[in-house]
Amino acid sequence: MTRVRIDLNLSLDGYASGDQTLENPMGEDWQRLTAAYGSTRTFRERVLGDTSGTGTTGIDDRYADAYFEGVGAEIMGAAMFGLHSFPDDPGWKGWWGDQPPFRAPVYVLTHTAPRPSIPMERGTTFHFRNAAIEDVLAEAVEAADGSDVRVGGGVSTARDFLRAGLVDQLHVAIAPILIGRGTRLWDNLRGLELTHQVTAEVAESGTIHVTFSR
Amino acid sequence: MTRVRIDLNLSLDGYASGDQTLENPMGEDWQRLTAAYGSTRTFRERVLGDTSGTGTTGIDDRYADAYFEGVGAEIMGAAMFGLHSFPDDPGWKGWWGDQPPFRAPVYVLTHTAPRPSIPMERGTTFHFRNAAIEDVLAEAVEAADGSDVRVGGGVSTARDFLRAGLVDQLHVAIAPILIGRGTRLWDNLRGLELTHQVTAEVAESGTIHVTFSR
Repeated sequence: MTRVRIDLNLSLDGYASGDQTLENPMGEDWQRLTAAYGSTRTFRERVLGDTSGTGTTGIDDRYADAYFEGVGAEIMGAAMFGLHSFPDDPGWKGWWGDQPPFRAPVYVLTHTAPRPSIPMERGTTFHFRNAAIEDVLAEAVEAADGSDVRVGGGVSTARDFLRAGLVDQLHVAIAPILIGRGTRLWDNLRGLELTHQVTAEVAESGTIHVTFSR
Repeated sequence: MTRVRIDLNLSLDGYASGDQTLENPMGEDWQRLTAAYGSTRTFRERVLGDTSGTGTTGIDDRYADAYFEGVGAEIMGAAMFGLHSFPDDPGWKGWWGDQPPFRAPVYVLTHTAPRPSIPMERGTTFHFRNAAIEDVLAEAVEAADGSDVRVGGGVSTARDFLRAGLVDQLHVAIAPILIGRGTRLWDNLRGLELTHQVTAEVAESGTIHVTFSR
């Protein structure tokens, strides 16, 4: 049974982006929001290609491992792919290098003209869709073939899916910092705990992992 | 050495009040925000006067017990005392009954004309001060005589003290619910973790206890 999953890094004050902008996709706040995740052995291996086995192996790494486990298709907003930053470059292949960590079809939501799909190494193919999120989700579910679909982000895309009631599992890794700027995840999500069960645990890093599941 | 402490109940989306208003001081959201705290044995005994020993005794109760421990004076905003709700009633003695749980001098911040102090049973005396928060704090520190001073709330009063750098320990009990309305604590508190150490733990109730200490 396919589940629709979201994983995000948040600050304690609920911001998912901080100083991250189109011009500055890897800002100082972003580094701090994702520091614990970026230190895990799983992230280092899967995203950075570091196979030396270094990195943390505690609770944060368990979530990092689960992040990549069982996902058969991914959906992301145009900004997360970088379409907004390079709108006129037909050769732009995203932020993710030659071997993106997704290893599955990735559906990029866009309001611009259709683009051809981009096959990458290790199983990732980027597809571009200008369609309602429900329709893109249906296509992703079919592509996932029984595995899960992840809505990767950014935060406004995640919120759209959450508000539409399309998400089965939301995991947020809350860094115990206050950044006071950026885009908030939680706006207009009152009552999510009424349709989902909530669990929480604190990692060795101080990161608070909260999961909403239905 | 006197420390200045704040304890607040928050929702996961950072609201400290929800539907709590001057007209509706005990709203539905407020009940949900404080449910875990209100279920503790300490709260039942200390605030409700229930000496039957019922109530939870886990991590939430440990924080409830610490809440009342070692506080020699309290500061609260006018709304928390109820001054705004009963501005013209000179006989109004606050929401807290004949035996308020503070058992110490309580300094109520007000912009209205001076009122006489109100001695209550069991050691609580309400004083009313129209003065800068630094000056009221200095008076409370002297009254506490080596014990701690708590800034009890409400949330805007707490924020004023936090922004002024006057708080040594902030404990928030985060209920795993999203209420999407009310007054947020965290606005404009960027970087509090740079001056304070942060710890977190999850109670049996699912409440996430986060403490900033310096």
